[in-house]
Amino acid sequence: MPRVSHKAWAGRMAAPTHRLVESFTTSLPVDRRLYAHDIAGSIAHCEMLAKQGIISKRDARRIVTALGQIRREFAGGTFRASASDEDVHMAVERRLIQKIGAVGGKLHTARSRNDQVALDLRLYLKDAVAQISSCIRALQHALAAVSRRHASVIMPGYTHLQPAQPVLLAHHLLAYVEMLGRDRERLADCAKRIDVLPLGSGALAGTTFPIDRHFVARKLGFSRISLNSMDAVSDRDFAAEFLAAGALVGMHLSRLAEDLVLWSSQEFGFVELPDAFATGSSIMPQKKNPDVAELVRGKTGRLYGNLMSLLTTLKGLPLTYNRDMQEDKEPVFDTVDTLVSSLQVLQAMMPALRFRRDRLRVGATRGYTLATELADYLSTHGVPFREAHGVVGAIVRHCIRRALELDGLSLAELRRFSPHFGADVYRWLKPETAVARRRAPGGTAPINVRRQLRKLRV
Amino acid sequence: MPRVSHKAWAGRMAAPTHRLVESFTTSLPVDRRLYAHDIAGSIAHCEMLAKQGIISKRDARRIVTALGQIRREFAGGTFRASASDEDVHMAVERRLIQKIGAVGGKLHTARSRNDQVALDLRLYLKDAVAQISSCIRALQHALAAVSRRHASVIMPGYTHLQPAQPVLLAHHLLAYVEMLGRDRERLADCAKRIDVLPLGSGALAGTTFPIDRHFVARKLGFSRISLNSMDAVSDRDFAAEFLAAGALVGMHLSRLAEDLVLWSSQEFGFVELPDAFATGSSIMPQKKNPDVAELVRGKTGRLYGNLMSLLTTLKGLPLTYNRDMQEDKEPVFDTVDTLVSSLQVLQAMMPALRFRRDRLRVGATRGYTLATELADYLSTHGVPFREAHGVVGAIVRHCIRRALELDGLSLAELRRFSPHFGADVYRWLKPETAVARRRAPGGTAPINVRRQLRKLRV
Amino acid sequence: MPRVSHKAWAGRMAAPTHRLVESFTTSLPVDRRLYAHDIAGSIAHCEMLAKQGIISKRDARRIVTALGQIRREFAGGTFRASASDEDVHMAVERRLIQKIGAVGGKLHTARSRNDQVALDLRLYLKDAVAQISSCIRALQHALAAVSRRHASVIMPGYTHLQPAQPVLLAHHLLAYVEMLGRDRERLADCAKRIDVLPLGSGALAGTTFPIDRHFVARKLGFSRISLNSMDAVSDRDFAAEFLAAGALVGMHLSRLAEDLVLWSSQEFGFVELPDAFATGSSIMPQKKNPDVAELVRGKTGRLYGNLMSLLTTLKGLPLTYNRDMQEDKEPVFDTVDTLVSSLQVLQAMMPALRFRRDRLRVGATRGYTLATELADYLSTHGVPFREAHGVVGAIVRHCIRRALELDGLSLAELRRFSPHFGADVYRWLKPETAVARRRAPGGTAPINVRRQLRKLRV
Amino acid sequence: MPRVSHKAWAGRMAAPTHRLVESFTTSLPVDRRLYAHDIAGSIAHCEMLAKQGIISKRDARRIVTALGQIRREFAGGTFRASASDEDVHMAVERRLIQKIGAVGGKLHTARSRNDQVALDLRLYLKDAVAQISSCIRALQHALAAVSRRHASVIMPGYTHLQPAQPVLLAHHLLAYVEMLGRDRERLADCAKRIDVLPLGSGALAGTTFPIDRHFVARKLGFSRISLNSMDAVSDRDFAAEFLAAGALVGMHLSRLAEDLVLWSSQEFGFVELPDAFATGSSIMPQKKNPDVAELVRGKTGRLYGNLMSLLTTLKGLPLTYNRDMQEDKEPVFDTVDTLVSSLQVLQAMMPALRFRRDRLRVGATRGYTLATELADYLSTHGVPFREAHGVVGAIVRHCIRRALELDGLSLAELRRFSPHFGADVYRWLKPETAVARRRAPGGTAPINVRRQLRKLRV
Repeated sequence: MPRVSHKAWAGRMAAPTHRLVESFTTSLPVDRRLYAHDIAGSIAHCEMLAKQGIISKRDARRIVTALGQIRREFAGGTFRASASDEDVHMAVERRLIQKIGAVGGKLHTARSRNDQVALDLRLYLKDAVAQISSCIRALQHALAAVSRRHASVIMPGYTHLQPAQPVLLAHHLLAYVEMLGRDRERLADCAKRIDVLPLGSGALAGTTFPIDRHFVARKLGFSRISLNSMDAVSDRDFAAEFLAAGALVGMHLSRLAEDLVLWSSQEFGFVELPDAFATGSSIMPQKKNPDVAELVRGKTGRLYGNLMSLLTTLKGLPLTYNRDMQEDKEPVFDTVDTLVSSLQVLQAMMPALRFRRDRLRVGATRGYTLATELADYLSTHGVPFREAHGVVGAIVRHCIRRALELDGLSLAELRRFSPHFGADVYRWLKPETAVARRRAPGGTAPINVRRQLRKLRV
Repeated sequence: MPRVSHKAWAGRMAAPTHRLVESFTTSLPVDRRLYAHDIAGSIAHCEMLAKQGIISKRDARRIVTALGQIRREFAGGTFRASASDEDVHMAVERRLIQKIGAVGGKLHTARSRNDQVALDLRLYLKDAVAQISSCIRALQHALAAVSRRHASVIMPGYTHLQPAQPVLLAHHLLAYVEMLGRDRERLADCAKRIDVLPLGSGALAGTTFPIDRHFVARKLGFSRISLNSMDAVSDRDFAAEFLAAGALVGMHLSRLAEDLVLWSSQEFGFVELPDAFATGSSIMPQKKNPDVAELVRGKTGRLYGNLMSLLTTLKGLPLTYNRDMQEDKEPVFDTVDTLVSSLQVLQAMMPALRFRRDRLRVGATRGYTLATELADYLSTHGVPFREAHGVVGAIVRHCIRRALELDGLSLAELRRFSPHFGADVYRWLKPETAVARRRAPGGTAPINVRRQLRKLRV
Repeated sequence: MPRVSHKAWAGRMAAPTHRLVESFTTSLPVDRRLYAHDIAGSIAHCEMLAKQGIISKRDARRIVTALGQIRREFAGGTFRASASDEDVHMAVERRLIQKIGAVGGKLHTARSRNDQVALDLRLYLKDAVAQISSCIRALQHALAAVSRRHASVIMPGYTHLQPAQPVLLAHHLLAYVEMLGRDRERLADCAKRIDVLPLGSGALAGTTFPIDRHFVARKLGFSRISLNSMDAVSDRDFAAEFLAAGALVGMHLSRLAEDLVLWSSQEFGFVELPDAFATGSSIMPQKKNPDVAELVRGKTGRLYGNLMSLLTTLKGLPLTYNRDMQEDKEPVFDTVDTLVSSLQVLQAMMPALRFRRDRLRVGATRGYTLATELADYLSTHGVPFREAHGVVGAIVRHCIRRALELDGLSLAELRRFSPHFGADVYRWLKPETAVARRRAPGGTAPINVRRQLRKLRV
Repeated sequence: MPRVSHKAWAGRMAAPTHRLVESFTTSLPVDRRLYAHDIAGSIAHCEMLAKQGIISKRDARRIVTALGQIRREFAGGTFRASASDEDVHMAVERRLIQKIGAVGGKLHTARSRNDQVALDLRLYLKDAVAQISSCIRALQHALAAVSRRHASVIMPGYTHLQPAQPVLLAHHLLAYVEMLGRDRERLADCAKRIDVLPLGSGALAGTTFPIDRHFVARKLGFSRISLNSMDAVSDRDFAAEFLAAGALVGMHLSRLAEDLVLWSSQEFGFVELPDAFATGSSIMPQKKNPDVAELVRGKTGRLYGNLMSLLTTLKGLPLTYNRDMQEDKEPVFDTVDTLVSSLQVLQAMMPALRFRRDRLRVGATRGYTLATELADYLSTHGVPFREAHGVVGAIVRHCIRRALELDGLSLAELRRFSPHFGADVYRWLKPETAVARRRAPGGTAPINVRRQLRKLRV
């Protein structure tokens, strides 16, 4: 009689696995994190097997009870892995058979590790995407709260890191709210493709048992079932798409972080970091560094790297499941952890930032940021825009040479550049006016900013 | 009076641009490809300016007419670029002013190159995504047609590139149809985020002119307008998301290509390449190489590279527009071209492939692919699956040692391994039975394959 | 009096660090792996401080002794981290002061964490590169041993995965020895750039203390010292270069793994995996999967991802040290671990592979691999190569249609294609001859293979 | 008689190549750039064939003469490609046969496109690496020249983008000289691995003709010949290594660019861009943007993308040549072009930058950058460094609250924090002193900077 050993497939082999192979191929240190999802999937599968009469109700009850105990062992940290456990699935099953004997072996009827691991990762990612999405939403609200508190603060808007035009600080912050909104949309779209039950696909060809996949899907909260078993066991699109969405979240956070690093620099001086969110230097006693923002920015690397990692692994694999795909989990887990921690720490930091309104206001007009107003003024008075632009360019050069501000020019001086200037031009040369006049939808005028904030609240 | 020169901003500078800077910064060789979308955007913008009374209807008519002429110059290859043209936008405007004089300068009222270039790329990508999606659909249909033609062909299904279980060739091919279906879903989701009009965001802060953005959106076929001008001019998410979706398409094609390379190898011998789709060797006269599949697989590199390129460029950029973002176009164009050509050539090749049914059928049972049937048989007769698996593992080892096939064992021999075997077991040991019994949804049974094909047809 | 607290910089801050910031910014879970190198660096630094009279010899002795104890605490697993330990450097220093009081605070004289962490990573990588290089060498020797054992085995050489020309199995395996040789060269070149002492660069500007950097370099085995302090603290080239070299090693291993997966497939059947190096299936009892090779191939993903991760992190950072750079360690550690384990398991597996000489020999001539011989024959007899190639192409088509092998054609038949064929042509149509005739250096002739093997031995 | 057609392998095929396949697989639009290297390689090969008596001297002369003419056709833009030219190699050969008839077909004796294309890319890269290296050297010298011109200018040194300690501007710029020096080392190391002749490897197995590979190597300037033909035709390490070295150059340039963008911002105001190196805005007349630096930074994306592209393409390819590898050239060409243009434009820009010494000097002490001097002072007077650090941290907090500079504190006030302060402390509180005291090798003291400059000159 063949022995029934730890390894699910030991019957096939004449020699035990090489020690190096065992340690090289095991995924338990990584995938043990999936234990709760693995057990939930197994319970649903087991209940279905019983409902369909594939195993007896009595066997099913014993299995389900034991699975619950094993889950508690994992949760309580008392689960003992064995060196020969290849992965979390076999670890759970080994323990199950340890607890209730051979009947535990019936759980694996009508399924394979190939559809099981796909199920586990999907169950995990459903939860993870929901969590990340809620962290994003929390950061959006933190940004909105800061925007509301500083509703009238004006600052310089930049292009090319050069002062361009005055904008509301709220408008600047709400740009990030928009980006994060797209991130949530993307995650929601990704979630649709995660939300497909692969269980029932067997190793690759489906199963011969009269299973009820829709029952399992309902139990586990999936909206759809997969339609092609070969695709179902070799599909990791949902993971790669998640990593791509995560890379974009990271890209957005890196931009926010860059702004925060700049704003808290001595030279910009727009933001003062609270001590609780800064760190110091081991050698320079005066230092207060924006480490949180820097680390968030730096972690973009791992988010991009995780995406590239899975894409590379999947490239050129023939159908169906190949062991290469075991490498799917670490990048996914790392991206989840990185996003959750980055989002949470930024959310905690946002309300603690002290914005220096005085410096923001001074910066708002430095560098002739109101030059566009002059060009718009001329354009409104019939000068073709291109010509108006040229005129004002000359005015700016004149002012730089004389170290004058734009509103330091007399009307007579202005008229030397263009006869179209009238006394009302000076009204245009205030940042508040410049901001308020940008009422076209999406512009920085307070009315638009309020509208965007209202929309978020809903 | 300040001169009005080629460069939109020449009025501001005291010295001409350095020759190296001119050639380093120009994007015209790349972005001239956007000319039709640029001009379409300008026409819509111009009509809106006239409708709103910002410019006169007469000026608008002259501008629109001249833009139409310029479009024809581009289309006909007679457009002459100037060395100082920074990009397609300025090239068009320069030519416009050349044609109709200073009035051409009014076109740029109430817009900036920052919102203009975002508009152009979105318009371009709307078209490109539709084209790629339709190429994907065509490939799906080509795969489906091959599947229908070979509806009853059985082949070995693989995991780990080892024969696993018999499957229908159609089932295998339809796995790719599923992948491609997700690709189209992803592109459709991406298209929602492309479908947002950025024009009207100005340089970064919106515009002071009483523009009608919804009018422009309707004219150009956008469903929504952007809500935050700073975000609108610095957002390239839609391009990065497109590149990510394109990378996944490429990953799928690389897997299909890998299968084709394997299948057309001497050793597999499942597919014969028609001469029109193979290439030879400059030195080995016997060679017939699957170059198309290899190149498709190789091009995964550029698709991944393009994604990484844009993600890297965007990392850590402060708001809003930075010149770095000019680097967005080449990866996008290259991914579009790569996908369209790869999809088209594969679509043309699929119907031309000659599948060798004999070899597929022989392969379907080689390597004991029906061992699972035995285990299922025992499991159906009350043996816990794990135990059944162990029993059959021992049977397989026995067969290998004796160089026997599974159905070469007598019932008596089988019973030495398990008393549960009965005479009906031999019925299970036919690949047709094995395939047909996998009727659970998604399995390889003909009924499922037909269902999947019907679904695609709709 | 200001309190002296855990945090090196607590004196500067009025409020304690936020809990989330503490957990977000700590690197101890990752960099504790550097403890031995950190302590070695500290001891050398301390001895130098004493030698230069910057601290007393007595203080130095106490510090060095305590550092030795702390090293043992780490090694023995008894070191207790504190929640406020920011990194391994501060953890060691905190413990040092705990043990010997304020005098421990003198250790940090004339250095900063910025040069300290650069030192630690360099010390670590010196060891890691040596270890990897030695693992590569071991795999080279394993490949060479297999080559020697199978010195006369002929197999089909492939291009485009189509049989091309017969080659020696040894020649094929030695191609990997060449690749691995370049990997070692690259690592050696990288090691030159790792081998630079950064300590003494201070936080960024150097130090005011009369230190002796060459003394420290000698103590720690560095050949050179860095010449610009700002560069020294912000340079992570050596890590990125290492990750790039590691990505190339991974690429090579992925190719070897692909060959092994193919060779152990049923269809190729060139190699039989020993049971100790194969794994099975949870559901298909017959399965013997080449999981080791697949995993090695799959891990290419993380090696590429790690490279991309660090490159992304470093992109666009202003000088000098930025906290982003804390993210340098995980990709480095992961690449080291991945390479060492992959190389070791492959090295263990190579000698255990059973090559099936019969199938290799049969494959060596399948697919008209000797067609080039015919073309060479004609070319040797004065037919321009291009014309000869065309003639033989027609012969091959003729043979395929008639299901003949090349040596199944009579001389008369051959002469119908070209009058230049003589009776001696049949001698050319043996794979042994074809192999032996490729004596030009680098060709697959036994003489060349032996030469390559001898070269390796030295 | 079989026709001799355009396609080298037309004899083998019964049907012409499909139109889509022809356009999909041709590489001529890309690799025509290699024409000069291809022809140089062919000439050396031809001369060797004649020397060895494989072809007649007369034939060789005719071939060489015609190749020279073809080179002139390419150079002069009069070469006419044919739709069926697969690549530059076949285009040249087709033209050769067109010119001199069947004798042209003898050129391909004893070689294959597989070793030919490897040769061409190596020849090309030898030149390209030399050119890039010389561009890097030129930029190093430009940085050194600026450093010399501003030898005594002091500026703030940053960590975390916070002012840290005063440094010499020259010291900061020379940090980039160091990075670029490593880049040149890396390229030189890469060049060693490029410098290997692959010709003579044939399609994969070597050649049967009595060729003299060392003769060809000498003719073409290679130091070594490849030792394993299978490796030689499938090796693209040298290209991947070049792309990795190029990615690091790009990373360095992105950091320099980031510094330049920051320095030319209004807020930093350290550098004024000359008009010839700035660009303006289409809408904001005041704008002067650092587009060159931004584009250089942005192009990091394509450099990383090119690396990832080739690495992905090579992943998992079985030996030997596969058509996937045709994708090697575009990333290589693009990286070469990107590096050369970026380096040249930066080199031209460096001497034109106007550094604002006043603002640099003011910045040098802003933000309590001399606090470390106080800590060093105390440490020198026997206070353990950690304690000294804590004391000065408290002093800085005190100064911030009172809006005082460090040297605004009286000695009495200082002594309230530590009795170790003496009157000589004020001498330490000058940036010139702080800089000059960092004389330990590599520190920012003028003596070190001069040493580094002298070293470069040699």
